[in-house]
Amino acid sequence: MKLDKKSNFSEWYNTVIREAEIVDDRYNVKGFVVHRPWGMRILKTIYRIYEEALEEHGHEPVLFPTVIPEENLRREEEHVEYFKAEVFWITHGADRLLPRRLALRPTSETAFYYMYSYWIRSYRDLPFKAYQSCSVFRYETKATKPLLRGREFLWIEAHDVFSTSEDAYRQVREDMEIAREVIYGKLAIPFMFFQRPQWDKFRGAEYTFAADCLMPDGRFNQIASTHYLGQRFAKAFEIKFLDRDGAWKYPYQTCYGPGIWRILAALISIHGDDHGLILPFDVAPIQVVIVPIPSKDVSYDELIKYCKVVEDRLRSGGVRVRLDSDPDVTPGAKFYFWEFRGVPLRAEVGSMELKTRSVTLCRRDTFERVRIELELLLDAVEDLSRRIFDNLRSKAERELESRIVEALSIEEVGESISKGLIVKAPFCSVDYDGEPCGEKLKEAYSAEVRGIRIDVEEEPPDGAKCIVCGRPAKHYVYIGRSY
Amino acid sequence: MKLDKKSNFSEWYNTVIREAEIVDDRYNVKGFVVHRPWGMRILKTIYRIYEEALEEHGHEPVLFPTVIPEENLRREEEHVEYFKAEVFWITHGADRLLPRRLALRPTSETAFYYMYSYWIRSYRDLPFKAYQSCSVFRYETKATKPLLRGREFLWIEAHDVFSTSEDAYRQVREDMEIAREVIYGKLAIPFMFFQRPQWDKFRGAEYTFAADCLMPDGRFNQIASTHYLGQRFAKAFEIKFLDRDGAWKYPYQTCYGPGIWRILAALISIHGDDHGLILPFDVAPIQVVIVPIPSKDVSYDELIKYCKVVEDRLRSGGVRVRLDSDPDVTPGAKFYFWEFRGVPLRAEVGSMELKTRSVTLCRRDTFERVRIELELLLDAVEDLSRRIFDNLRSKAERELESRIVEALSIEEVGESISKGLIVKAPFCSVDYDGEPCGEKLKEAYSAEVRGIRIDVEEEPPDGAKCIVCGRPAKHYVYIGRSY
Repeated sequence: MKLDKKSNFSEWYNTVIREAEIVDDRYNVKGFVVHRPWGMRILKTIYRIYEEALEEHGHEPVLFPTVIPEENLRREEEHVEYFKAEVFWITHGADRLLPRRLALRPTSETAFYYMYSYWIRSYRDLPFKAYQSCSVFRYETKATKPLLRGREFLWIEAHDVFSTSEDAYRQVREDMEIAREVIYGKLAIPFMFFQRPQWDKFRGAEYTFAADCLMPDGRFNQIASTHYLGQRFAKAFEIKFLDRDGAWKYPYQTCYGPGIWRILAALISIHGDDHGLILPFDVAPIQVVIVPIPSKDVSYDELIKYCKVVEDRLRSGGVRVRLDSDPDVTPGAKFYFWEFRGVPLRAEVGSMELKTRSVTLCRRDTFERVRIELELLLDAVEDLSRRIFDNLRSKAERELESRIVEALSIEEVGESISKGLIVKAPFCSVDYDGEPCGEKLKEAYSAEVRGIRIDVEEEPPDGAKCIVCGRPAKHYVYIGRSY
Repeated sequence: MKLDKKSNFSEWYNTVIREAEIVDDRYNVKGFVVHRPWGMRILKTIYRIYEEALEEHGHEPVLFPTVIPEENLRREEEHVEYFKAEVFWITHGADRLLPRRLALRPTSETAFYYMYSYWIRSYRDLPFKAYQSCSVFRYETKATKPLLRGREFLWIEAHDVFSTSEDAYRQVREDMEIAREVIYGKLAIPFMFFQRPQWDKFRGAEYTFAADCLMPDGRFNQIASTHYLGQRFAKAFEIKFLDRDGAWKYPYQTCYGPGIWRILAALISIHGDDHGLILPFDVAPIQVVIVPIPSKDVSYDELIKYCKVVEDRLRSGGVRVRLDSDPDVTPGAKFYFWEFRGVPLRAEVGSMELKTRSVTLCRRDTFERVRIELELLLDAVEDLSRRIFDNLRSKAERELESRIVEALSIEEVGESISKGLIVKAPFCSVDYDGEPCGEKLKEAYSAEVRGIRIDVEEEPPDGAKCIVCGRPAKHYVYIGRSY
């Protein structure tokens, strides 16, 4: 199997997630996949890192039922209007028709907020910040793709409640910051943070914000979104608190959805190469694999004995290490196998290493090799892990920057999109009055207006015109295709 | 609210899980509960400890879909016969009838083994050991009770495949060992390990084994079960492997279900007292709570400053610590609050402690207090955490032992059961020919034959007779009521 990420990303992606045993899409229900051990270990690590970050920022873990009664969904009008086209319904228990049908949660606002009306009573209960890690279910009619679009997919959802609108907006910024700490800071994935156009917001929200990274085929991948809900759900679910001034008030809410599946899709796609996955050190299930290189001048037992010394040394330093000592597999086959799975460092141990009490380390990202004395091994691993991280991240950043082009006419948009680029352009408005212009771009090029960046400040020059309608441009927006 | 665990366990239990914010049963779907932060933190820790133990014993993490198509369930006859009376069915996506209905997993044999037929091909793939942490769904018609019987509940399921029957039976023993390491070794919960009577086995298994602990009302609580499946599912799902001898063979399987919910129920019920929860150190979300004791001869700021020194010291030693510095709440109210939540150690810091650079530690289990110099604090905490653990466990063991009585007639069984005891008695057979005797006990006393112990060796004396039918007794069995 010859991989070619650049010229056929889709085939590359499908091959890698199958062969690296990330997910298996042969389960016999459309859009539902099985997470295999290697993928599951990475997912669990991403979950752990994200949960730790959420908890450091004051969120508590909770877990709500998988089912939501229809009456809850109906409480917020826009919300049910949108999601009812995507809901799986449970109608029977054994042979009995249930008294009322239950939705498999497509998202859990209407489960959480039903309980928040019990839990939140006083300004002393606020801010209230809780999250759950779970899967959600959507009856997708579009084509499904593992880790990008499924009928069951994995995410985290955080649901926060504040006494003031300012606090809620501050949370939106904090959500962006948490995404940066985790996705950029630990997974080496650069992203842009947008305020989405009003016509593309989460149904039930007042404003939607989202992190988009860029996949190798030039399409946006939304890896997290956060929504300013204002008081809409509070009013729908009668969540009220007694404020310091003695008055009962509706609180302000936000909800935040890091897409753990989509983050994994980005991790695989952005860092991988034609040899398979490349995993940053922090999320690699195995960080260093030790491969013994047998030769005539040393016994296999002696070699393995020394390999175990190396293994112990690494493990004692907190490194997730694996000694691949199977004598029936060639070193070459082992190299191929672990490279494909993205193990960031390989430690080769042959007769030379044994004689000199050293280890040859090979970087998965550059294939650079360096021989290190055993005594300096832990330091070298730490140093190389940082270099790999920096290299992956700066490569990804260069790639992202090189894909952004500015356009000053709608024709230029089309041209750039067809080349797999994303377009920055002056645009009339991301409020509802800009929707017709957004629709035109979608019809002409299947491209979406992803919104205004709130992670950088940028304004179109005075007198700039919307590239679609020619009215004065209020903002720069970013336009491209998406997953 | 006055708690009395001894005289009214059921009320004690309901009050404790509600007031300690373990779960909330006010969600508006019967049998589905919400896990609140304090309970969720404990659950997550139990999950982590159990997952680590499973992984140390060679299991890999996976995650399967929440839904199972009906055709999979139908593959194994006994299995579907039993579970079809307990399955929730998904019939619609949006307004559309699905081409075939989907079950919410009641257990995942028929999902796992469908994929195992793809994954397992050669003796080199064996043993294959995988687990998932998830919730499962059963349309219970009996009364539900949080953490003990629910329509959605949390567990782990491990599904293992071996080339020989011996290997599979060895796994049953290992499953018992893992339960011992975690449940007895980390959570201080003693249990008995049974081979269940054939009429009470998991449907689809050849033999069922299970860990039962004893709740304070004298009822058994099954906290884990493991099943020897033989080749039944392998044949139903066409799982075959090419053995060393070149022949295609059906492998032997086991499945193992630690009931994380029920383990939490046991943890709460067995260790708790009339002041609330008592948590062993390893699973306590907060292991030490620091409570400042204000007084006239010291400023609050100074006190808090020293409390922070204590906090840092504990944190640097890896202790999960919380400083409860709220000046608007009295120390007494703080004591009550954290005692109720089961925090194993309280560090009291007043003017005396400040002056002498010391801390007064109070044990949650005995309320014993001891003043310790700051320099010795970490050692003292470690020592006390072990003493608390030992005390909880030996108390629980004494309690369990004191509840077991031997009976030599069916009347004695009835008497003992009604007193909340469990009965050890000679019994004819746990094979199908003993079922009528088991039925009689159930009808007469609502008591179940829980099976033969395999964790201890015990045989009835020569000539012993079954207490029900008077035939020669093959075994000692244990009889009691259960959750």
